[in-house]
Amino acid sequence: MRLLECVPNISEGRDADKIALMAEAIRKHKGVQLLDISSDWDHHRSVFTFVGDPEAVKEAALSLAHQAIDLIDMSQHRGGHPRLGAVDVVPFVPVHGVEVEEAVDMARGFGKELGGRGIPVFFYEDAALRAERKELPAIRRGEYEGLVEKMKDPFWKPDEGPDLFNPKSGATVVGARFPLVAYNVNLKSEDLAMAKEIAKKVRFKDGGFPRVRAMGVALKEKGMVQVSMNLTNYRVTNIPKVYEFIRKEAAGKGIEIEGSEIVGMIPLKVLEGLVRHFLKYPEFSINQVIEQRILDFE
Amino acid sequence: MRLLECVPNISEGRDADKIALMAEAIRKHKGVQLLDISSDWDHHRSVFTFVGDPEAVKEAALSLAHQAIDLIDMSQHRGGHPRLGAVDVVPFVPVHGVEVEEAVDMARGFGKELGGRGIPVFFYEDAALRAERKELPAIRRGEYEGLVEKMKDPFWKPDEGPDLFNPKSGATVVGARFPLVAYNVNLKSEDLAMAKEIAKKVRFKDGGFPRVRAMGVALKEKGMVQVSMNLTNYRVTNIPKVYEFIRKEAAGKGIEIEGSEIVGMIPLKVLEGLVRHFLKYPEFSINQVIEQRILDFE
Repeated sequence: MRLLECVPNISEGRDADKIALMAEAIRKHKGVQLLDISSDWDHHRSVFTFVGDPEAVKEAALSLAHQAIDLIDMSQHRGGHPRLGAVDVVPFVPVHGVEVEEAVDMARGFGKELGGRGIPVFFYEDAALRAERKELPAIRRGEYEGLVEKMKDPFWKPDEGPDLFNPKSGATVVGARFPLVAYNVNLKSEDLAMAKEIAKKVRFKDGGFPRVRAMGVALKEKGMVQVSMNLTNYRVTNIPKVYEFIRKEAAGKGIEIEGSEIVGMIPLKVLEGLVRHFLKYPEFSINQVIEQRILDFE
Repeated sequence: MRLLECVPNISEGRDADKIALMAEAIRKHKGVQLLDISSDWDHHRSVFTFVGDPEAVKEAALSLAHQAIDLIDMSQHRGGHPRLGAVDVVPFVPVHGVEVEEAVDMARGFGKELGGRGIPVFFYEDAALRAERKELPAIRRGEYEGLVEKMKDPFWKPDEGPDLFNPKSGATVVGARFPLVAYNVNLKSEDLAMAKEIAKKVRFKDGGFPRVRAMGVALKEKGMVQVSMNLTNYRVTNIPKVYEFIRKEAAGKGIEIEGSEIVGMIPLKVLEGLVRHFLKYPEFSINQVIEQRILDFE
């Protein structure tokens, strides 16, 4: 079995009936499983997580997009989260037996079809066609409200779809990226400066581990501090590397790890690296996991 | 998706054509996946590992048994491994979304049908009907050659099938058991007595961890010693507990763990305990693994 994941961020987080209609647009596709819907009233935004065969996932994403475009009028939308359009961001993520290249193909195909429906589309991350569109925040700067002006600038000519501002739907950012592992380590300390100092040493931007973003955070209710991380490519830097580094850094200051957590879902392959490291078992393979073998038979 | 595993031990390990016919008897069942065949010439024995929906697995086990009974004449069988019959031992193992009780039901149903085909059947482990038949070695003592005498003793009246010795097929032992985790820890030392001492502290028989069997072994080629273990119920004692215990015991003698290994296959659930322990993350659930969720949708 091959699994591509899609995690569209849609600008509707309040009307349960509309959210249900959008979920149904995904669910009607055979070979696709809708794993999660997270809706936020304040953000006025919903995130749908679904997986399946790559082509089926692209088709389900298109059905969702068409449904969202029908239901949402961006000229009426106010929410706490930055957004550019009704179908705001659509990342395709290779999860199991799929490489990034195929995720890029699906993203480009999705973008082309959405463009044909009259929505300006920008490609980002691994699907980006231009270096300056690699990062989402650069594309989304100015948000929906600034889009009418932004699109008058030839620099922001969309990668697909019309060059003109679409007031009802705004624009859509479509991309492909590796699965992101959101991983936090909590330290038995209230010293936020210390957590920030460790985070700085961990993150790539300041000379730390490649493909790692990190920041120090105070967990006021717990009376602790946290190094909060995004591992954007676990094949390059996986959990054990940052866990052990943080453990040693903290120990050097007489501080212990209280605990850690993986936020959201991970591919099974992430666990392979954990077993290899913590059991001193470099040959371990997830092919030794019965469930993995079953999936690969299908 | 629910997965029951079946691991029949068949008294034919030399004739590739016969082994292929037996594999085919399993493969023809839809909803069953044959994961592994291990044949040993000296033992004159093959172990088939297959998984699938419980009922389908029972049916596939019966097809395999019927094929083996047709092909094997125990009166001609000589091999290095203890055995009682053509279809020697048939354990049913709950792997994913299946409890031991259902494995017992399948074992009993399988035994009843095999008994109806004229094969004396003894139930063991969790499927045992009598305490003295809980352990396989007690049932198999005297082997095939001793069976004709053994069956004259009313104490050894079979649980299913005829009371009479069946010279062509011998008898079959059928049971249900929890998945076994075969786990070894290698120590940077050639001191076998030390490995045996640690193994003694680890194993339940001598006051160690429940559901753990252990022995000290010399790895002559590697110049190391090993604590070789069977964890017969990972829900009771999982890998981290024995790993940390052995690490501390060895460290007390100034010896380090060189590495460790899991022999054969494990259910995904085994990894849950590893993540919980090594990442100090007691809330971790394998439901956070995308592949697990996919299987449970099916």
